Amino acid sequence: MASSLGRDLEGIAGAGSVLVNQADLYAYRSDATYDYATGKPDAVVLPQSTEQVAAILRYASARGIFVTPRGAGSGLSGGCTPILGGIVVDLKRMNRILGVNPGNMTATVEAGVVLDKFKAAIGPKGLFYPPDPQSASVCTIGGNVATRAGGPRGVKYGTTPHYVLGLTAALADGTVIRPGSLCVKQSVGYDITHLFAGSEGTLGIITQVHLRLLPKPKASATAVVTCNSAEQAASVVSAIISAGTIPAMLEFLTAMAVMVMNSIISPPLAGDGQAYLLMEIDGSPEQVAADVKNLSALCKDMGVMDVRVIEDKKEAASYWKARASLYPFILTMAKKMVIEDVTVPRNQLPEFVKRLGELSARLGILIGLGGHAGDGNMHPSLLFSEVDENTRHKAEQAVEQIVRMGLALGGTISGEHGIGLHKSAFVEWELGREQIELMKRIKAAFDPDGIMNPGKIWPFEAGREDQEA
Amino acid sequence: MASSLGRDLEGIAGAGSVLVNQADLYAYRSDATYDYATGKPDAVVLPQSTEQVAAILRYASARGIFVTPRGAGSGLSGGCTPILGGIVVDLKRMNRILGVNPGNMTATVEAGVVLDKFKAAIGPKGLFYPPDPQSASVCTIGGNVATRAGGPRGVKYGTTPHYVLGLTAALADGTVIRPGSLCVKQSVGYDITHLFAGSEGTLGIITQVHLRLLPKPKASATAVVTCNSAEQAASVVSAIISAGTIPAMLEFLTAMAVMVMNSIISPPLAGDGQAYLLMEIDGSPEQVAADVKNLSALCKDMGVMDVRVIEDKKEAASYWKARASLYPFILTMAKKMVIEDVTVPRNQLPEFVKRLGELSARLGILIGLGGHAGDGNMHPSLLFSEVDENTRHKAEQAVEQIVRMGLALGGTISGEHGIGLHKSAFVEWELGREQIELMKRIKAAFDPDGIMNPGKIWPFEAGREDQEA
Repeated sequence: MASSLGRDLEGIAGAGSVLVNQADLYAYRSDATYDYATGKPDAVVLPQSTEQVAAILRYASARGIFVTPRGAGSGLSGGCTPILGGIVVDLKRMNRILGVNPGNMTATVEAGVVLDKFKAAIGPKGLFYPPDPQSASVCTIGGNVATRAGGPRGVKYGTTPHYVLGLTAALADGTVIRPGSLCVKQSVGYDITHLFAGSEGTLGIITQVHLRLLPKPKASATAVVTCNSAEQAASVVSAIISAGTIPAMLEFLTAMAVMVMNSIISPPLAGDGQAYLLMEIDGSPEQVAADVKNLSALCKDMGVMDVRVIEDKKEAASYWKARASLYPFILTMAKKMVIEDVTVPRNQLPEFVKRLGELSARLGILIGLGGHAGDGNMHPSLLFSEVDENTRHKAEQAVEQIVRMGLALGGTISGEHGIGLHKSAFVEWELGREQIELMKRIKAAFDPDGIMNPGKIWPFEAGREDQEA
Repeated sequence: MASSLGRDLEGIAGAGSVLVNQADLYAYRSDATYDYATGKPDAVVLPQSTEQVAAILRYASARGIFVTPRGAGSGLSGGCTPILGGIVVDLKRMNRILGVNPGNMTATVEAGVVLDKFKAAIGPKGLFYPPDPQSASVCTIGGNVATRAGGPRGVKYGTTPHYVLGLTAALADGTVIRPGSLCVKQSVGYDITHLFAGSEGTLGIITQVHLRLLPKPKASATAVVTCNSAEQAASVVSAIISAGTIPAMLEFLTAMAVMVMNSIISPPLAGDGQAYLLMEIDGSPEQVAADVKNLSALCKDMGVMDVRVIEDKKEAASYWKARASLYPFILTMAKKMVIEDVTVPRNQLPEFVKRLGELSARLGILIGLGGHAGDGNMHPSLLFSEVDENTRHKAEQAVEQIVRMGLALGGTISGEHGIGLHKSAFVEWELGREQIELMKRIKAAFDPDGIMNPGKIWPFEAGREDQEA
């Protein structure tokens, strides 16, 4: 182990738990956005217990070394990038499911448990954990909590924070706290559990999580609605929500998205629409049958081109797999892509979609539109076929204008990806100066020396550079 | 207006908005617990806008005057009692429903809106707001948020915080913040909205709330299960939860509770059981029919004495009205009652019920047992037929032992009533010293001079008495 930092960390977390060679450190510069790899860690440590995490933080705290926690690194906002160097704490070895309790419908997991592995473990017990960020095959539950991750099921089931009952976290000075409990109802002082949800590693390191589970729905059905325009699709979404039948998933897809997805969907979907809605309805068999009937009738009343209920389970699964793979697929086509995460009140979706089309035309930049329409969470993706200064500038303009457009419609700048670096410049537009100042004071209550994940949520302030390791 | 404080407050909130006469001030000493009326406000002010609330706080802050916010005063933990005097801010005149948006399934209300009035306003639009504390006819939505109020529907639908998307609050210095939004998915920095949920007026004053709504369930059914012992009833609850059919409400009632409720239930329920479960199942008509069949079969398999499905809607309503009136009824019988709010993991209910029975026998104190069993939230009620020092001492012992019993089973000291004064001495047993110190630092981020609702959540510290007005 070359550096003294590396040796010290190995002393805490054990042999083979620290990375300090340059190739490894390079790999830890970025998350799934790549764009924000402006710093490089001095060391990466992979602890295996809460006690080790606490000891690492005590060590870092005593020396004023910055610490950046990291789950799978599949985030889309640059949240786990160590822009000022220091220590990256990679939680992936804390991957044990500590308990599953069907009699209480709860589970306790370590922060590094991969989401899909957890679902695979509880499924056979008839248990269901709804959050489903599209990176489920790699992302960790700790990372999901830290970013308030969502996914298509948000429309009916809400996002990760709705299923977090309590957690274990180590604060910057190594103090270990255990807010919340395994009870599904709690009212004992400030909700520190949910303050960690969305804190993006700036308040401490989440090491364990208590999760609330649901019974697995007994039946489900998938349907595809073909629409003659993006605006029509958005109007159908709004009408479905108003009508009082909430699908488990309600996804908005452009013709382009369906074209890409068709390489997985079997048999491929006839691509004659301008926009598509992909729905899953779940519940008891009786309820699913009734809901499918009602939703089909509603869509037809609104003049859509086609409603197709996918009876074959394997075929239905191919649609959802294609949906989950949409962005990786697009990335194989476009050299660069920025995925936006603006969310608007659901009745504002038609207007948002209309304005996005106008923006795309005005700036001459391709904006692929998809998203979890049922909860108003759209992911306009800006595609750049080639990168030059002019294109980059136009893309930056487009991001800024999409964000302003969302806010003007009563929306929020992030539905489920978090702020990280990507949105930190916009945060004040939504929250105002007072709330940012309040958040800074809250951060100081957890991390008085400011060592935890600096430069995230709000822009880094130069005045604190003296704390750099 | 006698006092200069009164005159100043009238200058801010208008003529007729301030109470300073002794009879009025006396009435504002306590909440629904009566026990905690140890202080008296110097003035009560009834503002009508966020701006007035902010101005009152600016005024109080500049002078170091304590401020205690108050909704309906129907709390059960002494949370709104002005133990150190100062100003009580009564929000009841801020009772406007500011907007209902069926296309987005949301509403915005002022903090003083009475829960049942809100439900009556949205019901005809096919909208549903699940939280249902049993004080719904008087309690305010702002108070519900401040205490994380629950109610029987918590088992299926969660409690108030699950439905809060954002809010407007005035901080101690009069700064107005608006965390959250009307979007059902958000991940923009620290979740200040949910930090206010459960803050019991110690961080600032909530003046408006954005609420998430659901479509009104199309059908419901009520069933009563008669059990031959309290332990059997608790085991049935645990079995129902494990079986994966979650009722909308799942209440546990002792024979004594049913006896009291029978004065409202029409026709009265045959009182031959030792314990009863009262359930509501809701959803689509098809699903309700299937669930009622499954749940009845499950209960019968477990050897219960009887399962009765109440077909008549009016009769079913009489059960739920009786349930909501249970505690007021008991209070007409017993001179004194302390309602506990301990919550345990649901698989621990049978053990909790067994130990409570033993405790009641050992101390010779009557403990009426009822509660929202489906979410593990029990409300053991300690009844004192006469008050003497010995009885009071035994009751205090019983409360302490019930709290320790709940914690030993992995439970929490409050499911839905909050801490207030009633539980502040026990908070450290659950949270530990580190979390309380962290909460104090969080409070200081909102209220650096400590004027907001002193002495709640954790015990008041004498060192701060110099701040008293």
